[in-house]
Amino acid sequence: MELLIKELTQRVKKASRVMSSLSTATKNAWLIQSAEQIERMKAEIQKANEKDLEGGKSKGLSSAMLDRLALTDKRIREITLALREIAALPDPVGEISRVIPRPSGIFVGKMRVPIGVIGVIYESRPNVTVDAAALCLKAGNSVVLRGGSEAFHSNRALAEALRAACAGTEVPPDAIGFVNTTDREAVRLLLTMDDCIDMVVPRGGKPLVKLVSETARMPVLKHYDGNCHVYVDEDADLDKALRICINAKVQRPGVCNAAETFLIHESVAESFLPRLGKALIEKGVEIRGCPKTCRLIPEAKPATDQDWDEEYLDLIIAIRVVPSFEEALDHIARHSSSHTEAIVTENHTRAMRFLREVDSSSVMVNASTRFSDGGEYGLGAEIGISTNKLHARGPVGLEGLTTQKFIVFGDGQVRE
Amino acid sequence: MELLIKELTQRVKKASRVMSSLSTATKNAWLIQSAEQIERMKAEIQKANEKDLEGGKSKGLSSAMLDRLALTDKRIREITLALREIAALPDPVGEISRVIPRPSGIFVGKMRVPIGVIGVIYESRPNVTVDAAALCLKAGNSVVLRGGSEAFHSNRALAEALRAACAGTEVPPDAIGFVNTTDREAVRLLLTMDDCIDMVVPRGGKPLVKLVSETARMPVLKHYDGNCHVYVDEDADLDKALRICINAKVQRPGVCNAAETFLIHESVAESFLPRLGKALIEKGVEIRGCPKTCRLIPEAKPATDQDWDEEYLDLIIAIRVVPSFEEALDHIARHSSSHTEAIVTENHTRAMRFLREVDSSSVMVNASTRFSDGGEYGLGAEIGISTNKLHARGPVGLEGLTTQKFIVFGDGQVRE
Repeated sequence: MELLIKELTQRVKKASRVMSSLSTATKNAWLIQSAEQIERMKAEIQKANEKDLEGGKSKGLSSAMLDRLALTDKRIREITLALREIAALPDPVGEISRVIPRPSGIFVGKMRVPIGVIGVIYESRPNVTVDAAALCLKAGNSVVLRGGSEAFHSNRALAEALRAACAGTEVPPDAIGFVNTTDREAVRLLLTMDDCIDMVVPRGGKPLVKLVSETARMPVLKHYDGNCHVYVDEDADLDKALRICINAKVQRPGVCNAAETFLIHESVAESFLPRLGKALIEKGVEIRGCPKTCRLIPEAKPATDQDWDEEYLDLIIAIRVVPSFEEALDHIARHSSSHTEAIVTENHTRAMRFLREVDSSSVMVNASTRFSDGGEYGLGAEIGISTNKLHARGPVGLEGLTTQKFIVFGDGQVRE
Repeated sequence: MELLIKELTQRVKKASRVMSSLSTATKNAWLIQSAEQIERMKAEIQKANEKDLEGGKSKGLSSAMLDRLALTDKRIREITLALREIAALPDPVGEISRVIPRPSGIFVGKMRVPIGVIGVIYESRPNVTVDAAALCLKAGNSVVLRGGSEAFHSNRALAEALRAACAGTEVPPDAIGFVNTTDREAVRLLLTMDDCIDMVVPRGGKPLVKLVSETARMPVLKHYDGNCHVYVDEDADLDKALRICINAKVQRPGVCNAAETFLIHESVAESFLPRLGKALIEKGVEIRGCPKTCRLIPEAKPATDQDWDEEYLDLIIAIRVVPSFEEALDHIARHSSSHTEAIVTENHTRAMRFLREVDSSSVMVNASTRFSDGGEYGLGAEIGISTNKLHARGPVGLEGLTTQKFIVFGDGQVRE
């Protein structure tokens, strides 16, 4: 097993040198051919998927899990559409920025370059096989793919299509490394190959992210909780506040950028909370409030200390009345998972202080936390949302799969 | 001990929230007051330094080590000058960039923000106490300082001056955390405090960097070897090549951006190597060459396989004749430590290919590798040179001590 993983990652690393200098046209040709190849191999891919679905049924997977696993015609269309969309995105590699002359006579700038080899460790959705490989390769990297065992046959068939699509292009098939075993030991081994894998991206539930973060010897682009806050300031436009609070909580409660706690300035609590409570209850939201909230919204249950740290991912909201802007900042500093926070206010000074002082990957004024998303930000497709502080923070698109190096243009200069 | 370190890092973390929103003027006032405070406390600091020097002598430290440790009047002047220079640097914090309108009506941009708490673990030079704290705080961070035990009293006296300089400013003294013990266990404990320390910077020899990298649970801004290459292309201007090779090797051989291997294209070997050999030998450089090199420079010793991976940090150079540009790229990919590489050529296409394809933190055309330096690049003072691929790569100044977050300006927008 160790030999298998070592040999695989070394081949992928070798291919990454070729990948790093390919033209945009070559990478796009591979993306388009991949879409075509998946369409051509559709029957084969769906047959492999059938095997996974049968295996899943006999293992007793829930119908939600089986649904996530299924490669219907519609899903396959979505996968090929995503490939064509990634082909249409601008290539970040090779961008040269800020070239400045120095007193010595040299010119110093930065060039955007691929990271090298990206490991992607993911769970049940087979489309991640294609999305992740497409993004990594478009950014000039090669990729090692390791999906969930329940989607093994589907993932393998898709990876084969991606490798077959290299034919006639300069993209080396080894740029798409697929871990051809469901043995769990393979994950642990991958995470020790820091001489070959430059960064690893776990995509899945918290246990997976935790396992990868604790085991990996290379940097991990990770996403933990999304305990997002909306703070309604004393100078909030309460119509905007209502619209934003409702949208942030109920538009899609199961995702990481949904709000989990509202903080309401006490000077607007009396006028705002009854309205907010009514609207939330109409949408079927359970409210857990501080004592003041419970007084103003009789349907609210008392919140426990634990509620302020909870990521419900469900139609539940915690609400706290705060005596001041500063107390809202303190609450966020103590309880936030540093994902996304929003302030609703018409006061310019507090809006700008909130932007500067809240230490989260996305900070918003008068907008729903639900906008924290690569598509909404204009990044194109995203490989994930990072709650890391370093390298890429927030939604991560192609640029987050690259890094920069210094470049120096001289004319024979030496150092005195 | 664990309690001591925990309590220290928690206080520093708390102070980092205050630091992150201080104005540039406040941070600069602290820097200037620090310079003045060190001048005022000079006698006290030198007395503490005397204690370290006596301890060092009785421990049998080499005279080079004792010299590095000594806080002479000149050194103290340099330390206070550095503080004033850092005060004069532009503040990177708060910079807002690339704010673009999105179809939803929101505006999305990025804001540069401090990282939080930086741990700095260093060896004998006491000036690092001041330099590191000044850079970290100017970039809006707080710092935990842990110096070498042989400089303990000097470091403590300097840290006390920095804390005393907070008086009358809004900079909290806890933003400068000093590990007040020489117990080695403190280092291990610090490196596990990833809930309080966001990044750690080891400054010292390879064993220290290795220890920190292997132990730290937080990201490490590290610098390993500098096995730097100069490649002399078939279209090189041989006068420039000679000047650059000699400068890269002999101007200061003991530093990481000095060259350790020259690669010479075979079509210029006959005309160039005898000239180069003569100049190197005049400068007292020992040459270890491939068979062709040894034929053209009779004084050269045969190189072993190990020589291509060696960071001599001394007046020794490895020289290899290569049959092609591609073979030079391959040699660099195999042996380089990804620090700094240079090509000497008048050929535009190969110059640009070299810039793009060589995967090092600095890549140069027609300039000495010795330019790979924060001062030469115009970054101002540097906290170190990073050979990491992610976050900061190459010389790291104030900007490398910050990160970015997304900011969103809305006017009540919600997601459809």
